[in-house]
Amino acid sequence: MRTPPYEVIAWNRGRVRLLDQTRLPWAEVSLDLGTVDEVAEAIRAMRVRGAPAIGIAAAYGLALAAYAAPQGPDGSVLKAVRAAAPRLTATRPTAINLRWAVERVVEAVAGTEGEAYACAAALAEAETIHDEQRSADLAIAESGVRLLARVPATILTHCNTGPLATGGHGTALGVAIEAHGDGLLERVIVDETRPRLQGARLTAWELGRYGVPFEVIVDGAAASLLAAGQVDAVIVGADRIAANGDTANKVGTLPLAIAARYYEVPFYVAAPASTFDFEAASGAAIPIEERDADEVLEADGTRLAAPGATALNPAFDVTPVSLVSAFITDRGVLRPPYDEPLAMLRARAEAGATGH
Amino acid sequence: MRTPPYEVIAWNRGRVRLLDQTRLPWAEVSLDLGTVDEVAEAIRAMRVRGAPAIGIAAAYGLALAAYAAPQGPDGSVLKAVRAAAPRLTATRPTAINLRWAVERVVEAVAGTEGEAYACAAALAEAETIHDEQRSADLAIAESGVRLLARVPATILTHCNTGPLATGGHGTALGVAIEAHGDGLLERVIVDETRPRLQGARLTAWELGRYGVPFEVIVDGAAASLLAAGQVDAVIVGADRIAANGDTANKVGTLPLAIAARYYEVPFYVAAPASTFDFEAASGAAIPIEERDADEVLEADGTRLAAPGATALNPAFDVTPVSLVSAFITDRGVLRPPYDEPLAMLRARAEAGATGH
Repeated sequence: MRTPPYEVIAWNRGRVRLLDQTRLPWAEVSLDLGTVDEVAEAIRAMRVRGAPAIGIAAAYGLALAAYAAPQGPDGSVLKAVRAAAPRLTATRPTAINLRWAVERVVEAVAGTEGEAYACAAALAEAETIHDEQRSADLAIAESGVRLLARVPATILTHCNTGPLATGGHGTALGVAIEAHGDGLLERVIVDETRPRLQGARLTAWELGRYGVPFEVIVDGAAASLLAAGQVDAVIVGADRIAANGDTANKVGTLPLAIAARYYEVPFYVAAPASTFDFEAASGAAIPIEERDADEVLEADGTRLAAPGATALNPAFDVTPVSLVSAFITDRGVLRPPYDEPLAMLRARAEAGATGH
Repeated sequence: MRTPPYEVIAWNRGRVRLLDQTRLPWAEVSLDLGTVDEVAEAIRAMRVRGAPAIGIAAAYGLALAAYAAPQGPDGSVLKAVRAAAPRLTATRPTAINLRWAVERVVEAVAGTEGEAYACAAALAEAETIHDEQRSADLAIAESGVRLLARVPATILTHCNTGPLATGGHGTALGVAIEAHGDGLLERVIVDETRPRLQGARLTAWELGRYGVPFEVIVDGAAASLLAAGQVDAVIVGADRIAANGDTANKVGTLPLAIAARYYEVPFYVAAPASTFDFEAASGAAIPIEERDADEVLEADGTRLAAPGATALNPAFDVTPVSLVSAFITDRGVLRPPYDEPLAMLRARAEAGATGH
């Protein structure tokens, strides 16, 4: 797998370098952040987005806090890191990776004796989190490519699941990029992904930078491409997967899954094991965020809909596990019947949590 | 059924009055057209759209030609009407209603003796075509309302099928408006209908003018509302229905039909008998227009997608007849199995054609 031809997030000489995603796809602007507050603002303003990428940014933000801690008695670095942690977690309270990454860095500092080592421990943990993401993405990409039954394949995807979203190689989009690198990809069909157009904007931008052939479509056109036999696999990411495999992802994922089943095209969910939420028994336990109606009624501040019109704007939908052909994870491919593989994944997750 | 609270098209003191749909939903501008060329321009520029409304506009356009014919020997009105006909039919060559309406007016003039009567015959035929559309729409609306199993009903619809599209009371949207008038409607869920946003713009504008409660959604959100049991019926129009019932309609209709079937919500196609094309054996015989990619990549001239991105833009999709719960036509409701009712409709259509 090729290193992404753009740098999403990096530690650079004592500062955090971040590609400003609010400027994409129009301009490629790197931010150079030196304080926790600057990192917090970048997360809050969605300059960095995608649950894993946000977690990595926050972890590097804590490393900034550690290095900025005043010289003092033992414990002053830990104190500074602990003070910074809630300022970072408060930026996007629902993102699970954010809290998890912040806790890991705090624990790493707490477990290190000596102020001289505490700063290095914070940065090392942030870099480990980043490295782990790269490895997880790589494992997903390689497993995903092996699932392609007909090559060169046309892969249809939704929303944005590339390096921009993970800080690594991406999840669902990583599979397509890997397939392209291996000469196994015909092209990617990119759902524009209304209302926020992450497909038409971010996914299209990423594929363009990688030189991967693609076409954008309106979300409603996916079914007719499936009907015409023009798609070999639908691959999407996930925001949260319940214990039974029900999958919450960007709104518009569910109709893809239903249409893919209707036309017998494989529908794959690509996500790291950390996306599984074993506290949620099924999709019914996953709350669906209702976002601002203006996202539907406007685009970039320009009114799209009739004056006076109101809108419903559920940000996510839940695809029942029965429609998922396989989960492509960093711990291998899970295939139906899912009871056993999901139980194994859960056991590993719980062992990992208690083993900390 | 209430008369629409806005006038889509009308003959007014020797001129054609037309609501300029290119100005909607931002401004309500009536055009006052006095010549065939002005009517032809209005059709070409989509100031009037929707196959039935275009046909009515063209018929009135021929009445303008008749009244503008120079005083002369017998036959001069017919000559003027025949000269005008191809200028009108050339505006949107694929619209079946357009050619059919123009032919009816020409035949009416040809069948009338005496110049004094020929002009009146042209106008009378145009008014008859308009009246027949109103009656057909009314029949559809009344039949459709009787199909609602649970009231007050929430109806989900796609694209625009209101009075703007037919010059009468509308087809699928007419059912919702009639249900509202009868106190049987909870609300309409309006697919925004990318790429041209006819739902968010025209349907939302029409429902607002009628005072019918509605909410706009992105097209990808329909499936989750169906999953949540929030929709009692999906009702859409049709651009062309094949002899076997396969239905071509605005892109994004097919995924609605598939999702409605998956969640066992009725999926109805509301269309006059004239929308059935018995020359096309099945959906495979209906060519799907591929429109300009910029409709996907831009909105109102503002770039939506990443620079350099290209798009596929099929304007229509074909819903297989097996997914249609019933056809709501001006000649009654057709229910599966469709073989017999479709054969009867076809026999009536062929008898009507030869009986002319």
